[in-house]
Amino acid sequence: MYSFKNDYSEGAHPNIIEALVKSNLEQTSGYGQDAYTEEAVHSIKEIVKDENVDVHLLVGGTQTNLTAISAFLRPHEAVISVETGHVCVHETGAIEATGHKVIAVPSENGKIRAGQILKVLATHTDEHMVKPKLVYISDSTEIGTIYTKAELEAISSVCKANGLYLFLDGARIGSALMCKENDLKMEDFPSLTDAFYIGGTKNGALMGEALVICNPTLKADFRYHIKQKGGLLAKGRLLGIQFAQLFKEDLFFSLATYANEMADLLRAAIKETGYEFFSESPTNQIFVIFPNEILEKLEKDFDFTIWEKIDEKRTAVRLVTSWATTRKGVESFIKALKDA
Amino acid sequence: MYSFKNDYSEGAHPNIIEALVKSNLEQTSGYGQDAYTEEAVHSIKEIVKDENVDVHLLVGGTQTNLTAISAFLRPHEAVISVETGHVCVHETGAIEATGHKVIAVPSENGKIRAGQILKVLATHTDEHMVKPKLVYISDSTEIGTIYTKAELEAISSVCKANGLYLFLDGARIGSALMCKENDLKMEDFPSLTDAFYIGGTKNGALMGEALVICNPTLKADFRYHIKQKGGLLAKGRLLGIQFAQLFKEDLFFSLATYANEMADLLRAAIKETGYEFFSESPTNQIFVIFPNEILEKLEKDFDFTIWEKIDEKRTAVRLVTSWATTRKGVESFIKALKDA
Amino acid sequence: MYSFKNDYSEGAHPNIIEALVKSNLEQTSGYGQDAYTEEAVHSIKEIVKDENVDVHLLVGGTQTNLTAISAFLRPHEAVISVETGHVCVHETGAIEATGHKVIAVPSENGKIRAGQILKVLATHTDEHMVKPKLVYISDSTEIGTIYTKAELEAISSVCKANGLYLFLDGARIGSALMCKENDLKMEDFPSLTDAFYIGGTKNGALMGEALVICNPTLKADFRYHIKQKGGLLAKGRLLGIQFAQLFKEDLFFSLATYANEMADLLRAAIKETGYEFFSESPTNQIFVIFPNEILEKLEKDFDFTIWEKIDEKRTAVRLVTSWATTRKGVESFIKALKDA
Amino acid sequence: MYSFKNDYSEGAHPNIIEALVKSNLEQTSGYGQDAYTEEAVHSIKEIVKDENVDVHLLVGGTQTNLTAISAFLRPHEAVISVETGHVCVHETGAIEATGHKVIAVPSENGKIRAGQILKVLATHTDEHMVKPKLVYISDSTEIGTIYTKAELEAISSVCKANGLYLFLDGARIGSALMCKENDLKMEDFPSLTDAFYIGGTKNGALMGEALVICNPTLKADFRYHIKQKGGLLAKGRLLGIQFAQLFKEDLFFSLATYANEMADLLRAAIKETGYEFFSESPTNQIFVIFPNEILEKLEKDFDFTIWEKIDEKRTAVRLVTSWATTRKGVESFIKALKDA
Repeated sequence: MYSFKNDYSEGAHPNIIEALVKSNLEQTSGYGQDAYTEEAVHSIKEIVKDENVDVHLLVGGTQTNLTAISAFLRPHEAVISVETGHVCVHETGAIEATGHKVIAVPSENGKIRAGQILKVLATHTDEHMVKPKLVYISDSTEIGTIYTKAELEAISSVCKANGLYLFLDGARIGSALMCKENDLKMEDFPSLTDAFYIGGTKNGALMGEALVICNPTLKADFRYHIKQKGGLLAKGRLLGIQFAQLFKEDLFFSLATYANEMADLLRAAIKETGYEFFSESPTNQIFVIFPNEILEKLEKDFDFTIWEKIDEKRTAVRLVTSWATTRKGVESFIKALKDA
Repeated sequence: MYSFKNDYSEGAHPNIIEALVKSNLEQTSGYGQDAYTEEAVHSIKEIVKDENVDVHLLVGGTQTNLTAISAFLRPHEAVISVETGHVCVHETGAIEATGHKVIAVPSENGKIRAGQILKVLATHTDEHMVKPKLVYISDSTEIGTIYTKAELEAISSVCKANGLYLFLDGARIGSALMCKENDLKMEDFPSLTDAFYIGGTKNGALMGEALVICNPTLKADFRYHIKQKGGLLAKGRLLGIQFAQLFKEDLFFSLATYANEMADLLRAAIKETGYEFFSESPTNQIFVIFPNEILEKLEKDFDFTIWEKIDEKRTAVRLVTSWATTRKGVESFIKALKDA
Repeated sequence: MYSFKNDYSEGAHPNIIEALVKSNLEQTSGYGQDAYTEEAVHSIKEIVKDENVDVHLLVGGTQTNLTAISAFLRPHEAVISVETGHVCVHETGAIEATGHKVIAVPSENGKIRAGQILKVLATHTDEHMVKPKLVYISDSTEIGTIYTKAELEAISSVCKANGLYLFLDGARIGSALMCKENDLKMEDFPSLTDAFYIGGTKNGALMGEALVICNPTLKADFRYHIKQKGGLLAKGRLLGIQFAQLFKEDLFFSLATYANEMADLLRAAIKETGYEFFSESPTNQIFVIFPNEILEKLEKDFDFTIWEKIDEKRTAVRLVTSWATTRKGVESFIKALKDA
Repeated sequence: MYSFKNDYSEGAHPNIIEALVKSNLEQTSGYGQDAYTEEAVHSIKEIVKDENVDVHLLVGGTQTNLTAISAFLRPHEAVISVETGHVCVHETGAIEATGHKVIAVPSENGKIRAGQILKVLATHTDEHMVKPKLVYISDSTEIGTIYTKAELEAISSVCKANGLYLFLDGARIGSALMCKENDLKMEDFPSLTDAFYIGGTKNGALMGEALVICNPTLKADFRYHIKQKGGLLAKGRLLGIQFAQLFKEDLFFSLATYANEMADLLRAAIKETGYEFFSESPTNQIFVIFPNEILEKLEKDFDFTIWEKIDEKRTAVRLVTSWATTRKGVESFIKALKDA
């Protein structure tokens, strides 16, 4: 049984494991106030080419989203997200649990368009409704698609013109940036967003998301919020060590590139066999519609996520690759698919 | 420079590291639904000698406290804690951030007495005040003291008689249970408390707290709360692997025993030199009052926490030992102390 | 200028004013623990023909919704509402501010259908999503439509079968029950819903909503929640006096009947003049689409709410009648409409 | 039976009732956007001699406190209050329910001293603890005492110097300002506090508290918060009408003066009879310690609040006077006391 179920099925990249082993008995200060974390923060500032951002390392994605968003907003302010957005459907109401409404707008390929934001503003005009204040987007999106630079610029412009914060969930930002269709760079985000995060969990780390706060007005007292929401790791260096490794010699990017390559192989084979895609994802998540009898055959040897029933005969499934996906795993899947 | 600053200065016990390395490239299901977590949960049920408890593995202590307490209480219900309790002072209002008041009562050696609980109940009699519903205690306490079995039984009785939940924060439960003065066992907690947690972070793990829910009425839907509060680790097996190791061949207990031994050495030397203790801790945290000139000398080679200014001439400091404290470190401190 | 803007433009029915004046200098206990409140509660139990319900008098609708819903739900539980539901759009995120997601489903004439509830349940299957637990409906709805007994029974059945609470917002329940198309009675609600409220503000009172809790498991400690959310009125008798009057000699129902009659007159005239209705409301809210030039003429002498721009040439408006609407006001509007 | 139980036992001053009756059938806009509210706001700006403040009329005290405080604070920020403060003990955790810790400090005559604030700041130094941000005081206090101008200036200075907001709960500000020992004026508050409220409920209105926001940074979007917390009254003019009347010809002040006079009569008689006072209140709340046998006699004909058991033989009680207290009621109490 080989799993394409997600990009967090395995542990961490060997470089990271090695660094953890090597540093294991060193004594450091707790709560992220150690030299490794400092090194990681420094690396990330270099990668995003902005010395003025604040960087905080957190354990997980939902934790990062809820901590950042609740820190950024006043009680009456709300989030705008596509209805497929992670904060909207897959975080058990984590944002609402901090008191804020998530206004869902229809998704087009998993993405929000600038015009939709304006429409939300136009229908939220007085104190009887929440005040939209933060636009939440994911890149890559929850269905594997990516934002073009032009799209992100348009969204960013609308946000700036209307006093909205733009927050980018980068749980899979590595795969997004490294895919062929992408024209965005890590260094674009500090000027285009108010805050974003770089996902480690799904790209080589045991765990960890690096939150980058770009808008100076959002920086104050952020560590209080991490602590209050239960996200301040006692052995904070664990995150520092990992991100320091991820940004050594571009490991983060080469891991994402590899994950995308494995996805490309799968995609090419699926195209060849003629099955329809559920979304046009160029990244490490592939959404494909299989006839149920094909599905049943594949399920014998492979693990993946049943996404959605399309009709009586067909089902959409999600296949995910990662830095840890083996070429052999991919090849055996392709063979099974062709034989099916 | 050697640090007695805390029990989370180093990484994890080598057994744990080895297990992480060994399992690193295995594929498992995410979010704690893997065989390692199952194994850990099984071990913990054996250790607490109760098959009916529910066990959940979380990353950190504040996260565990806030997730459990907010899951257990209705909006108008409040926590009773001594004023030195971790939830009361050192979690940045994490409990209040979930909507619940923490009623602080004076501490006696870091502990609450059954009579204090009754007094709180007697003064909270109608709907104009919060309804006390959960008693929070720590063992060992925030100042290193421990509860005797008789004390815990008295508290438990009062709670049961008055419909209160008893929640025990066991961030340092290993050191508490292994110290000489202790007469409690892990298997006492399922009947004496409604929920408690076993701290891994401070006793050999990279991170991790095992929450044990004993009261059946508190079990339903608990994973929803973990997810909502940002505590559901994607690579949940990391916690499973660690707790499985901690409860193999009683590693958890032998690590705590070792930490206590190191503390005993320090304590004995301090007693010999005649300095006064700030609290009567028999566990791995030592609170001692040093004249400031001694303090300054020790600070040159050792790291520890300045706890409280006693007067113009004396300061209370906290020294913490752990599984990772070296005998050499302890000996050099003792020497420095005697030479000072 | 005559206003059809809403049903809370005037003060209270003279009987209520008189009772307030008469009782003004009497001394009573505070916080709703007075004989008038007792009388009102008794009357309401009689009206709903159920001695076992709990009745609480609150000041306003949003307050009642947020207090009840947050008291009824655990943190991970969510509300299901049509997207036009008051809690969903017009309460400034009041429900989310208490920590709960409102899951919006498309509305059909302002109403939810039983099948939609099942669909929500089918897509909320694990702890990564909120747990739907309470269905919120309004009768009459936000666009003036009403539920038939059969519809409400179907919804109630689905709720009971799936462990969901059914909560009915009756801000305009008087108009709903008194309109010709209605086949529900006040006495149907205790068995069909878990809680509902009877709106006083929009049917003759200065202010006040009477919450009726039918499900015994939802009753405990409710006054704590009212107090905590800021809704426990010091001079609580003000609410008692008003509801006692409203249910004397069926005043509540005759006021609603009168409001509906005034609406019927307007509706008939609009039908006659041939303008299209925006919703098929049989109650005291009328939603009609006017050509913009007609709108402009009417605006000179009448106040009403601009609801929605339909296209470049037409606009939907809302006209509301109440117990206080004068026949003369209605007639002058009809004349203006016919002359326009 | 005559009641000295509280200052909200009766309805409203006749002037207010008359104004409500007179305006009853007028049509006005809802939600406080009417001419009466405008008039009341204007009067209050005149009374406080500051045109730049924002004034909002709310229904009750707990509602005002929770709405203002939650609007003013970020999630990690906390309130400082004396342990007898209303928000601390008598609002069912309303502030905590909005996510904020209330840090309790010992009270001296119901008052906080500037030095206590500094002490709290000195012990809240990092992100592991909440960040104190708002000082809550009441004038008169919960035990009837008042702040001198010098005391308030000292507190205000400490707040300004340390970036803290000062919020004054004026539920009984009328009695405080009109008592003989007082040297503060309404016009002092805009410069000394960041926000305060003028209590109507306990000084002649049916209900209503006028929140005055003085600090410009706290003004934005405040109506959103009122609505979200359930405090935006549909027939908002009810509050406008009442406050407009209260500030016509100084009615507010003369009512408070009268209440104080009645209290002075009681106080003088108590002094004469030689019973000990529980607090040195110069305002309309009197706290006196009676032998239990005296208490029992008085209870036959008078209603008051049992405050606290002093010892086996004596009990502290609270007597409250108001604008509605009759001279005859006072005289009969004095007679009963002397005869007892």
